Amino acid sequence: MSAPIGVFDSGLGGLTVAAAIRAALPREAIVYLGDTARVPYGTRSPATIVRYARNNVAFLKRQDVKLVVIACNTVSAHALGGLADGGDVPVLGVIRPGARVAVEASRGGTIAVLGTPVTVRSGAYEQAIHELDPNREVVQIACPLFVPLVEEGWTAHEVTRLVAQEYLGPLAGTRVDTIILGCTHYPLLREVITETAQRLLGRSVEVVDSATAVARDVAAFLQRAGLEAPEGDGSPPQRFCVTDAPDRVGDVARRFWGEQLGAFEHVDVFMGGPPGGGQA
Amino acid sequence: MSAPIGVFDSGLGGLTVAAAIRAALPREAIVYLGDTARVPYGTRSPATIVRYARNNVAFLKRQDVKLVVIACNTVSAHALGGLADGGDVPVLGVIRPGARVAVEASRGGTIAVLGTPVTVRSGAYEQAIHELDPNREVVQIACPLFVPLVEEGWTAHEVTRLVAQEYLGPLAGTRVDTIILGCTHYPLLREVITETAQRLLGRSVEVVDSATAVARDVAAFLQRAGLEAPEGDGSPPQRFCVTDAPDRVGDVARRFWGEQLGAFEHVDVFMGGPPGGGQA
Repeated sequence: MSAPIGVFDSGLGGLTVAAAIRAALPREAIVYLGDTARVPYGTRSPATIVRYARNNVAFLKRQDVKLVVIACNTVSAHALGGLADGGDVPVLGVIRPGARVAVEASRGGTIAVLGTPVTVRSGAYEQAIHELDPNREVVQIACPLFVPLVEEGWTAHEVTRLVAQEYLGPLAGTRVDTIILGCTHYPLLREVITETAQRLLGRSVEVVDSATAVARDVAAFLQRAGLEAPEGDGSPPQRFCVTDAPDRVGDVARRFWGEQLGAFEHVDVFMGGPPGGGQA
Repeated sequence: MSAPIGVFDSGLGGLTVAAAIRAALPREAIVYLGDTARVPYGTRSPATIVRYARNNVAFLKRQDVKLVVIACNTVSAHALGGLADGGDVPVLGVIRPGARVAVEASRGGTIAVLGTPVTVRSGAYEQAIHELDPNREVVQIACPLFVPLVEEGWTAHEVTRLVAQEYLGPLAGTRVDTIILGCTHYPLLREVITETAQRLLGRSVEVVDSATAVARDVAAFLQRAGLEAPEGDGSPPQRFCVTDAPDRVGDVARRFWGEQLGAFEHVDVFMGGPPGGGQA
């Protein structure tokens, strides 16, 4: 089935997930939506997060996608149930795949989840891990400065090393053997986080992220459902959409996607007009 | 006139401005509005910023305020003209007062403006300074990590000192004698920024912020217009409103306001319904 896979995030971080899907499934077309008019979701109330997520899913459905991937930990934590219910298009989140890959990678020790404050507060990774292994010990660490550091481009900066040391410091001497990067921005800090974790916990500590786990789940789902794209010639179309300021996304988007990408389209996902009434 | 003064910001940082107004004008009632459902404005397009600001002004007018203070550098830079035009309620921004206090404090040297990327890109402080003194040299420095550091509460942390050193480092050896804190969050970093600036530029460098300047302008305006509150007994009412998650603002709000404050009200500023359609 040559319909595209829809991927959305509150902003651009979800491009790390879209890039992993592209790498695993080079025949599939992708429509990416970043809700840059309303980013970040992490500080919103759960009701608001659900409302925004519904707008995004509805937009992707209007693009005739065969599958929606929620490349956003906040939405996956708060809204996945409500979005998947009763829909005609299947919806996959990032948290369960990430939790599964962590449980598989771990050698029985404690699993540490790094995330934004709202993801940590939701306890969604802990819950997903306990569904797989009820006795597994989990610690969660909120890392609010990691996202702005990535967006500043300081992915290998001394400041970032110091911040990582501050956030991960309490793990020293614990039984943590696996760390989940529980935010789509964090793969860009993989090197700093891994170095810090190895210094604190030894060289055998595993650092896993959800992006590759989700890509694997998407592949399995498409195969099972008979929805894989037919063999074609050339590259499938990829569309990149944002809800505000398409001219501002260039550098940050390229870092997440891993290479230069085409122009972003400015789209309207707000049913019944943009937020706050008529266009100025 | 006992009507309140309306103050709004995209989030909670504007409470530093509201606190300065309260300190200068203890008889005046204040209605504060933080648009926490749509914060931050700095990454939005100018058209979106104008639209959001109009919603906020309209909400404050419905509270019968006698004056609107835009305690937000982003809105003051992009939307002040459009908001002040043709209105029945006067509107004051933060940029001109801040520029004037900097020109007055300076001894003829260069003025450095620290701000968010969008404020710096707007060039609004530079323009306001040049309206007062066309030959004055101005340098602008974007400091994107200062806001998340304040919100993390790391106002005196080693990381914050290192970030300040990184942002201000290029000022060493220049003729800068005055620094404007061009963001409502930055007064909480006054100590770190002042220490860093003194180390780089000598102890006579002046660090000024817009909040006290705005409060002075508000006082002068009310007196000139005959709109001062009558002498009363006890404290005037102060209302604190946000557009999302009133239960989440406590700690951050207290830091900006300088002391414990009352409960926040959850209000709807979105004409014709909340952003993105009906309530979930």
